[in-house]
Amino acid sequence: MQSKYPSDSACTMTDLVLPGETNPLNNLFGGELLARMDRAASIAARRHSRRIVVTASVNHVAFNRAILLGSVVTVEAKVSRTFRTSMEIFIDVWTEDRESGTRTKANEAIYTFVAVDETGRPVEIPTIEPQTELEKQRYEAALRRKQLSLVLAGKMNPSEATELKALFVQ
Amino acid sequence: MQSKYPSDSACTMTDLVLPGETNPLNNLFGGELLARMDRAASIAARRHSRRIVVTASVNHVAFNRAILLGSVVTVEAKVSRTFRTSMEIFIDVWTEDRESGTRTKANEAIYTFVAVDETGRPVEIPTIEPQTELEKQRYEAALRRKQLSLVLAGKMNPSEATELKALFVQ
Amino acid sequence: MQSKYPSDSACTMTDLVLPGETNPLNNLFGGELLARMDRAASIAARRHSRRIVVTASVNHVAFNRAILLGSVVTVEAKVSRTFRTSMEIFIDVWTEDRESGTRTKANEAIYTFVAVDETGRPVEIPTIEPQTELEKQRYEAALRRKQLSLVLAGKMNPSEATELKALFVQ
Amino acid sequence: MQSKYPSDSACTMTDLVLPGETNPLNNLFGGELLARMDRAASIAARRHSRRIVVTASVNHVAFNRAILLGSVVTVEAKVSRTFRTSMEIFIDVWTEDRESGTRTKANEAIYTFVAVDETGRPVEIPTIEPQTELEKQRYEAALRRKQLSLVLAGKMNPSEATELKALFVQ
Amino acid sequence: MQSKYPSDSACTMTDLVLPGETNPLNNLFGGELLARMDRAASIAARRHSRRIVVTASVNHVAFNRAILLGSVVTVEAKVSRTFRTSMEIFIDVWTEDRESGTRTKANEAIYTFVAVDETGRPVEIPTIEPQTELEKQRYEAALRRKQLSLVLAGKMNPSEATELKALFVQ
Amino acid sequence: MQSKYPSDSACTMTDLVLPGETNPLNNLFGGELLARMDRAASIAARRHSRRIVVTASVNHVAFNRAILLGSVVTVEAKVSRTFRTSMEIFIDVWTEDRESGTRTKANEAIYTFVAVDETGRPVEIPTIEPQTELEKQRYEAALRRKQLSLVLAGKMNPSEATELKALFVQ
Repeated sequence: MQSKYPSDSACTMTDLVLPGETNPLNNLFGGELLARMDRAASIAARRHSRRIVVTASVNHVAFNRAILLGSVVTVEAKVSRTFRTSMEIFIDVWTEDRESGTRTKANEAIYTFVAVDETGRPVEIPTIEPQTELEKQRYEAALRRKQLSLVLAGKMNPSEATELKALFVQ
Repeated sequence: MQSKYPSDSACTMTDLVLPGETNPLNNLFGGELLARMDRAASIAARRHSRRIVVTASVNHVAFNRAILLGSVVTVEAKVSRTFRTSMEIFIDVWTEDRESGTRTKANEAIYTFVAVDETGRPVEIPTIEPQTELEKQRYEAALRRKQLSLVLAGKMNPSEATELKALFVQ
Repeated sequence: MQSKYPSDSACTMTDLVLPGETNPLNNLFGGELLARMDRAASIAARRHSRRIVVTASVNHVAFNRAILLGSVVTVEAKVSRTFRTSMEIFIDVWTEDRESGTRTKANEAIYTFVAVDETGRPVEIPTIEPQTELEKQRYEAALRRKQLSLVLAGKMNPSEATELKALFVQ
Repeated sequence: MQSKYPSDSACTMTDLVLPGETNPLNNLFGGELLARMDRAASIAARRHSRRIVVTASVNHVAFNRAILLGSVVTVEAKVSRTFRTSMEIFIDVWTEDRESGTRTKANEAIYTFVAVDETGRPVEIPTIEPQTELEKQRYEAALRRKQLSLVLAGKMNPSEATELKALFVQ
Repeated sequence: MQSKYPSDSACTMTDLVLPGETNPLNNLFGGELLARMDRAASIAARRHSRRIVVTASVNHVAFNRAILLGSVVTVEAKVSRTFRTSMEIFIDVWTEDRESGTRTKANEAIYTFVAVDETGRPVEIPTIEPQTELEKQRYEAALRRKQLSLVLAGKMNPSEATELKALFVQ
Repeated sequence: MQSKYPSDSACTMTDLVLPGETNPLNNLFGGELLARMDRAASIAARRHSRRIVVTASVNHVAFNRAILLGSVVTVEAKVSRTFRTSMEIFIDVWTEDRESGTRTKANEAIYTFVAVDETGRPVEIPTIEPQTELEKQRYEAALRRKQLSLVLAGKMNPSEATELKALFVQ
């Protein structure tokens, strides 16, 4: 299997915020945004692996900016790092102001997907080669996140999480 | 404001998995489950605070078990710890087998909500007193998660995250 | 087949009222509430029978209280009486005030479900033993409702509907 | 206010049964049909009264025939009798076979709607004059149903329900 | 196969405009109306052919009148002309004013459907005989539209499109 | 108002085909695709004009290729020509094969939108300058389509439609 670039899997999903997707303050529900990000991320994972893919986990997601009813929201998803059968997908969310046209970063999130065959069994996927500066940073950080996730799940001893340990012990 | 118990905010949302909510393997989409958990958690947060509430963040969520089309899914959300204007909500997800009636833990997740007034400004909320053993464990762990989230967001120096540091340095 | 208790089948479905589910007065559409009650009742029927279940009939349902957009609505369904292959499900609907936290009874309804096998043929189900005072009252009344339904469908002679006749002739 | 005919309010709603509206046997969910009937009935009530209308009650509804995924379903609603501020709506449901074109009666139901002003207060509506034989029968039976509903709600003494009593006492 | 009349295939779909279907001006989205018209037209095509049908094309559609949130919209679809395996469907859209009851023509559109067998292969369909004056006009115009569509798709030489040419050359 | 380029308004909407959006052959409903194209086109129109926009018309749309359940569909919309207050939007629809990754053109469509102010009154918009060869071709053809639409609506005499007439008279 040949290695690929993050740009090969990039998925752009631009759509409106409709009334049925908002909370009492007329902002997009957090849960709706999580669902849109999951769909966009699954398309990126599928483009990279050319397999059926299933959500394995969602990393910490912060909702810093409310997204108003009627807004145009763009969800951009790209594979940031691959492991043997799983991929980390980095998602950037943008909104744009109708009158000025200004695009504002509204959110970012990280999902992990596993590639599976028709019976649901994990299958190996191509590796990835980051190209831009940002892609390289995200590629590096993905390993730290992977270790944190293994530590929190009790599947890795904190003392072996070398990347992570470095954060706390200088 | 009087202190409350986690059971005061408990929200149970039992519903079916319908065809429009499944992936090509006929399992509930990760994104749909994230959206249901967000709605259940927002009801728990609202019951505790009696305020309008908005999603602030979603903690790491792992999808360990597939949930099949036609399943009955129960999402149970309860406030696990309060901070000044925000609450951590702990969510347990169960499925049940139609023929045997057996209930299986399918997932758990942690969301944070902020209570706001009609203009969207954060407001103070009642404190919480955990009662059962599980509630006490989750209450304790919530502080560690809060610190982790502040460290990852660059808002707290790793060396001040005493609870967290203890994990990596013995 | 062993007898069961009504509490074994109890289904709680708590959810929000979203904008797409309201009428021009901003209240939950009657039809949307009927659909939610049907889903909750089908889950209770399925929990009791551990079979595929289909809606057989809906008893008289009165809508006494409007349920506002943004409300939290709790639909509680429980098997109230069993017949050979069918079950009566009693449904209570509650709303709660966000600011005071007060729970108000908004509605009640009675649905009948039939348990079927994979080909759609009715199958026998376990009997039920009411336990609380309210469960016993509802169990008794269920027979009267069954007779009324048979009389209205022309499948029972009014003079044989002893329970019902007593209402009109003293 | 001038009297009207049932045909003035007739509402025909023909649509497909989509995958998201079916149960595990691939039939239209009872709850979905109840919701469609409510929307059609509300349009008939609104056409008769030219007012905002809200669902007041649903009469006994029997589901005798399963309606398959992909079917064409026609819901026909017509005002069958008016009272001072409320209307009874009679609903007939038909399905049709794609290959033979045969139309089959799948269901019937009776809903009651109240006409209200912009503040939700009941308002008087035009009376109705049944014309066809079927309309006359349904008009007569509506009074019996009204009495039954009042008796069941404890708002009328069974001995005063003359129409109804005649059923049980000869 | 016996010839049929346009009235044999007529499909009436009356429904409300719900909040999730409107744009920022509180009017029905153009795209939602296009989807409703497609469903109604597919039912008419299916009634005429008694086959599975798929959308082949949509003719020019003009949106001259906004349709407000809460409106009652009636979509009426009827086969206007048949070709060997395809049908032209003419669709009229009406809205009605709640207070006056006045019905206003809001739109018209023309869709083409192809009848197919279970494997998706086109199959022959019955011919049609227009009856009313309007049906005859639309039947005639359908040929002109067919030629225009073939010319625009580069499948017919403009000089052979006799009906169409007559429009431009006198 | 400064002139803009087509690329300034380009909107990419990539999403999955879910089960609730398919016909009995398991292909995306024509009506669903029309609705997605309308949303993407409205975003492109809004990006160009920075105004509220409403659908004015849909040009002839042909559905040449079925789009299967579970497919990834990309809808790309771009302003192709501007008039005083209206814009023509050209839409390309692509699907991609999961296993080979091949992208196939599934459809193209042309919508017209009008820019309006908060009261719904048409407002003037910036002009456009096509840049690529394809953009220039579409810009030219847009005038011919505009004339055709005016002729068909009876608002322009065929003899004045110089661009169009040339097609039929050599």
